[in-house]
Amino acid sequence: MVKILDKELQEVKDKLLQIGALVEAQLERSVRSLVDRDNMLAASVIDGDHEVNRLEVEIDEDCIRLLALRHPEAGDLRFVTTAMKIVTDIERMGDLAVDISERALELNDEPILKPYIDIPRMALAARRMLKDALDAFVNRDSELARKVTTADDFVDDLNHQIFRELLTYMLEDPKTVSRAIRISYISKYLERIADHATNIAEMVVYLVEGKIIRHTGKA
Amino acid sequence: MVKILDKELQEVKDKLLQIGALVEAQLERSVRSLVDRDNMLAASVIDGDHEVNRLEVEIDEDCIRLLALRHPEAGDLRFVTTAMKIVTDIERMGDLAVDISERALELNDEPILKPYIDIPRMALAARRMLKDALDAFVNRDSELARKVTTADDFVDDLNHQIFRELLTYMLEDPKTVSRAIRISYISKYLERIADHATNIAEMVVYLVEGKIIRHTGKA
Repeated sequence: MVKILDKELQEVKDKLLQIGALVEAQLERSVRSLVDRDNMLAASVIDGDHEVNRLEVEIDEDCIRLLALRHPEAGDLRFVTTAMKIVTDIERMGDLAVDISERALELNDEPILKPYIDIPRMALAARRMLKDALDAFVNRDSELARKVTTADDFVDDLNHQIFRELLTYMLEDPKTVSRAIRISYISKYLERIADHATNIAEMVVYLVEGKIIRHTGKA
Repeated sequence: MVKILDKELQEVKDKLLQIGALVEAQLERSVRSLVDRDNMLAASVIDGDHEVNRLEVEIDEDCIRLLALRHPEAGDLRFVTTAMKIVTDIERMGDLAVDISERALELNDEPILKPYIDIPRMALAARRMLKDALDAFVNRDSELARKVTTADDFVDDLNHQIFRELLTYMLEDPKTVSRAIRISYISKYLERIADHATNIAEMVVYLVEGKIIRHTGKA
């Protein structure tokens, strides 16, 4: 019985890393579809969301079955309920990658406003946060989880910097407004993706240390 | 044994309604602190977030204990795991009420830009969505849950309308920019609060009907 439980817990971990890697790839592709003005790639991200959703349901159902049949205790029980919360955050990060691709499709239709420098930097940071948060979860590494929450400040700062820069464009030339707003949305989506990674990291700290650390949202 | 389980499930329901009512009140107060330019009220919302967080942890711990000791099955098991996901959404709505209050404190320091008309309308709609989503959950009412997801479009539209209006202010008079941006943030927070209510409603439909309906995020 213990062996079956361990095997099934390992399967949940594997699938969580799998959906995490998938959402990381979705995120990378969504930003590349913007930078390279590649509509096909943007469409493939939108299409790929089905697989993210399917995996989320599968992991949820695996966890429910595991709870019903194996009655995990103590740390194992908390691991499973935390996994069910984490998978919700991952799925919502996937939705935000779709949102980025939708804005990319709109922006690719118009002349380029400016080269994208900070957006890819934000995306890289957010992807790293997602990867680290999940690694922290499967390895019960609260030190790594705390590093994720620190990285969130960097992403928040970049979001503000991008917004201020876009504002100068809008104020100088109102014709840039619709494009600048779309870019600011993408920046905001990336900030929310980083927030989700931070939420996951906070759950890991609570799971491992029993301590509550709270992400205090910045504008 | 069955009686104890039923009693404990009822306690989870009661506490979920309690934290829901608390977050509804936090939301109402946060927007009132903006409209009435009441800094004391804004501070009380920021202060009140501790109680939201405390209740979230309490509900989570109740659910874990219930899973560990009572081994609920089938629908009861799904009810408990869904409750644990829902309480995460509610807590994040509480964080957004704090964000609103923080922006209100900043805005109250400056001359008023324009009377707030649409922000209170959005807030009212979002509160209603939260209340309906939780009522739908405790009463397993998927019809009411579906109504919540429809209401989300109204809030999204208001958010866009507010943004367009603020943009005209910014373009006409750059001195309004910092205030207009803060108001646009508040509008965006309210939109996210409505998104959380929609997420809860979608979980209720899945719980009751086993059907997956997905909120397709709009910008």
